[in-house]
Amino acid sequence: MNRKMVFYILGRILLVEAVLLSLPTICALIYKEKCVYAFLITIAVAILLALVLILPNRTKDRAIFAKEGFVIVALGWICLSLIGALPFTLSGEIPSFINAFFETVSGFTTTGASIVANVEAMSHGILFWRSFTHWVGGMGILVLVMAIVPTDTGRSMHLMRAEMPGPIIGKLVPRIKTTAKILYLIYIFLTLLLVVFLYIGKMPLFESFVHAFGAAGTGGFGVKADSIGGYSPYIQWVITIFMLIFGVNFNLYYLLLTKKITSALKSEELWTYVIITLVSTGLIMFNIYSQFGSFSETLRHSAFQVSSIITTTGYATVDFNLWPSLSKIILFMLMFIGGCAGSTAGGLKVSRVILLFKTVKANLKHMLHSRSVESIRFEGKTVDKPTINNVTSYFAVYFMCLLGVIVIISFDPFDFETHISAAVSCFNNIGPAFSVAGPASNYSAYSDISKLALSSAMLLGRLEIFPLLLLFSPTSWTKKRVMKGAK
Amino acid sequence: MNRKMVFYILGRILLVEAVLLSLPTICALIYKEKCVYAFLITIAVAILLALVLILPNRTKDRAIFAKEGFVIVALGWICLSLIGALPFTLSGEIPSFINAFFETVSGFTTTGASIVANVEAMSHGILFWRSFTHWVGGMGILVLVMAIVPTDTGRSMHLMRAEMPGPIIGKLVPRIKTTAKILYLIYIFLTLLLVVFLYIGKMPLFESFVHAFGAAGTGGFGVKADSIGGYSPYIQWVITIFMLIFGVNFNLYYLLLTKKITSALKSEELWTYVIITLVSTGLIMFNIYSQFGSFSETLRHSAFQVSSIITTTGYATVDFNLWPSLSKIILFMLMFIGGCAGSTAGGLKVSRVILLFKTVKANLKHMLHSRSVESIRFEGKTVDKPTINNVTSYFAVYFMCLLGVIVIISFDPFDFETHISAAVSCFNNIGPAFSVAGPASNYSAYSDISKLALSSAMLLGRLEIFPLLLLFSPTSWTKKRVMKGAK
Repeated sequence: MNRKMVFYILGRILLVEAVLLSLPTICALIYKEKCVYAFLITIAVAILLALVLILPNRTKDRAIFAKEGFVIVALGWICLSLIGALPFTLSGEIPSFINAFFETVSGFTTTGASIVANVEAMSHGILFWRSFTHWVGGMGILVLVMAIVPTDTGRSMHLMRAEMPGPIIGKLVPRIKTTAKILYLIYIFLTLLLVVFLYIGKMPLFESFVHAFGAAGTGGFGVKADSIGGYSPYIQWVITIFMLIFGVNFNLYYLLLTKKITSALKSEELWTYVIITLVSTGLIMFNIYSQFGSFSETLRHSAFQVSSIITTTGYATVDFNLWPSLSKIILFMLMFIGGCAGSTAGGLKVSRVILLFKTVKANLKHMLHSRSVESIRFEGKTVDKPTINNVTSYFAVYFMCLLGVIVIISFDPFDFETHISAAVSCFNNIGPAFSVAGPASNYSAYSDISKLALSSAMLLGRLEIFPLLLLFSPTSWTKKRVMKGAK
Repeated sequence: MNRKMVFYILGRILLVEAVLLSLPTICALIYKEKCVYAFLITIAVAILLALVLILPNRTKDRAIFAKEGFVIVALGWICLSLIGALPFTLSGEIPSFINAFFETVSGFTTTGASIVANVEAMSHGILFWRSFTHWVGGMGILVLVMAIVPTDTGRSMHLMRAEMPGPIIGKLVPRIKTTAKILYLIYIFLTLLLVVFLYIGKMPLFESFVHAFGAAGTGGFGVKADSIGGYSPYIQWVITIFMLIFGVNFNLYYLLLTKKITSALKSEELWTYVIITLVSTGLIMFNIYSQFGSFSETLRHSAFQVSSIITTTGYATVDFNLWPSLSKIILFMLMFIGGCAGSTAGGLKVSRVILLFKTVKANLKHMLHSRSVESIRFEGKTVDKPTINNVTSYFAVYFMCLLGVIVIISFDPFDFETHISAAVSCFNNIGPAFSVAGPASNYSAYSDISKLALSSAMLLGRLEIFPLLLLFSPTSWTKKRVMKGAK
């Protein structure tokens, strides 16, 4: 383990966070809010800590292998959240640090689960930071570090692989740094586009930014108690469409940019994602039609909620906790699926679900004809065995961790539905769940231990489990085994 | 596909069922009940159908490969249940055939989920048959056919493998026929032992038999509305211990018989099973202590419910639906785990859960040190790759089927908890679930479609999914691909 390099990059991450914190500081200055001091203190703490980490750890051995990649990502996200929670507590708007930590993890992991009872009473600066964490977490802080920090370690693919979601990670261009830059440029462009669309729909500029951050990162923090329910149908439709856009693999947008439109449209994952969305919307429409009566309204609310859940955003236009069981169970399933790999969405990812289905199908065939060894093809390419094994074992470890979280939080005296759905919602980075943790409510009723368990669930979900598990594995920290030949 | 042989063995299965039906007929005769006619008609139908299947399909080509094995097991269990449902409907005690089918599938699959509102009003003959299906289904009808029918096809391992639960199936002795006989002899001995213990505890002889069938098959059908709640603590303890005994791999009993005591006690699966049971009992005791007050009563009810659920039996001494969330969620987890492979219990099986954990651990290690290829060891032996792949992909297909069942039944207007727990309970062959389908209630409120979906879930769970899925796969029925070299 190259500890020096780990601490060095952690320092870099905190420096970038300090820079990012200047944005809500400016916002607080504009609105002349007291929380500006909270931000300034946090920035000072972040810079100080960054220097402590960077200065003694400059090293010529810049080797980063898989192990370092996982450790940096896991520790990076934890530090990011610990520092990011400070403004909430220092400003006094979320006095309990555990609550602030929960809220910040929920922000960075683009979950959007909140412990805030009255969001409308919060200051602009704090609300801006809260939603901005979604935006940063959506594409990934390490991707950002790689995009803006001058040095390219050459081995930084391991960092990207550890942070980017999905079973198969490809570089857009040979250089990681350029890939990271392209991704962030597409991300910024789409976010600004959404701001413009919202602003045209007469949403105030501040709110347009906040909701654009929430939708772009597929997070779900807003500024109103009823989420998006109070806005016009136009705005609801705009957010529906943009949530879906941010749930698509960003590689496809790069293909569009480079005019490879046909190969973008050939994406198996894209079409599966579209079909799942359409079918779910249709089923829910049929199920809740009697609640609304008008076709257009039923369609709007069904499409909004389906898009919000499959992209793991978590915005709501109605309290879907009051919907009939069928609709709730469809939403519950969508929570597991999540968006496409390489998007800002959480969940298992559509591509993983497709690969799981194909693996099962191949195994069934193999059972009948034990001589037939059919290769699994995805997106026109044969998928290698290690990837397949990785997907199936990811699925197993995913459920084990999920069940673990459910057990821990169920010490709290809520009903079965709350516990199960809260854990699933946090693990898949959605936000609202059912019953006590429904969209019209929040997570504040949970105990501190449960909040920490749910925070871990959010981090496990966002970082796709392995980095965090490896962080707590003793073999990650042994110095002896230096694997020079590691891939 | 050797269709002649498939039909031939199906006929054999029905003949055996006709023989089995004679037992409840005798019971009905003893109690001078009208239902005796229902049994006689059913026996006639079974024999007639058996002859129609056997006579034209005598063939010299007795080859049975994996494909035939799966198809025979799947079709066999469906036919068995269709015929087995007749006495319920013909006697008028369960007038709806769908309900009767549900009850019979629930019986043979050792689930114990019931649609009967007033079980205490049923006749002795019908109650006997209802519980006897548990006993037959527990060890498997094809294992029985192999044990008693003279011919040994030589290839019948495929039949056994398709019916016996667990990831790794071994023969006890070189000959399948002898293995099947040994298993049934141990099974009969343990069942009779339980009858004796219950009878000593002053349970009437009829009830002793019925409950012994229910516990031996890990089924759960009883004769009282409050399941085992009304019986003495002695009886409750006896049933607790015997449920746990029937949840152990029967191979271990064979090892004990052949005086290989140390190798039986070395079983990893056995110890994991014991530890899970103890830890769960402890946690639940701590959680429900305030409900009972006395240590011995808390211990008894915790141990009973834990044993009942982990062995997927489904008997109850109290209405655990009224327990706090933590206890319910622990029981919910136990539903998934199930008993040991090679026992009469359902669920994923302890060995599969162990293998899943080991696979995950090996994958984590591999992620850190991509050169290290550590083999997975279980029960002192290295587990080969195909078995590991089979376990992880079983887990994936298991969840997919489970989710499918949940979606279908959630068209019915019950709450989230009912739907999720009912599907999980039926899929893992437990019986009672939570909320509307709790231990103090039954499944009669579900619609016919849901009942069929839940019946499928029970069959999928009992036969471990693949036989049924393959039955509906078109490639199973193509004549062209004859795989002579299949394993």
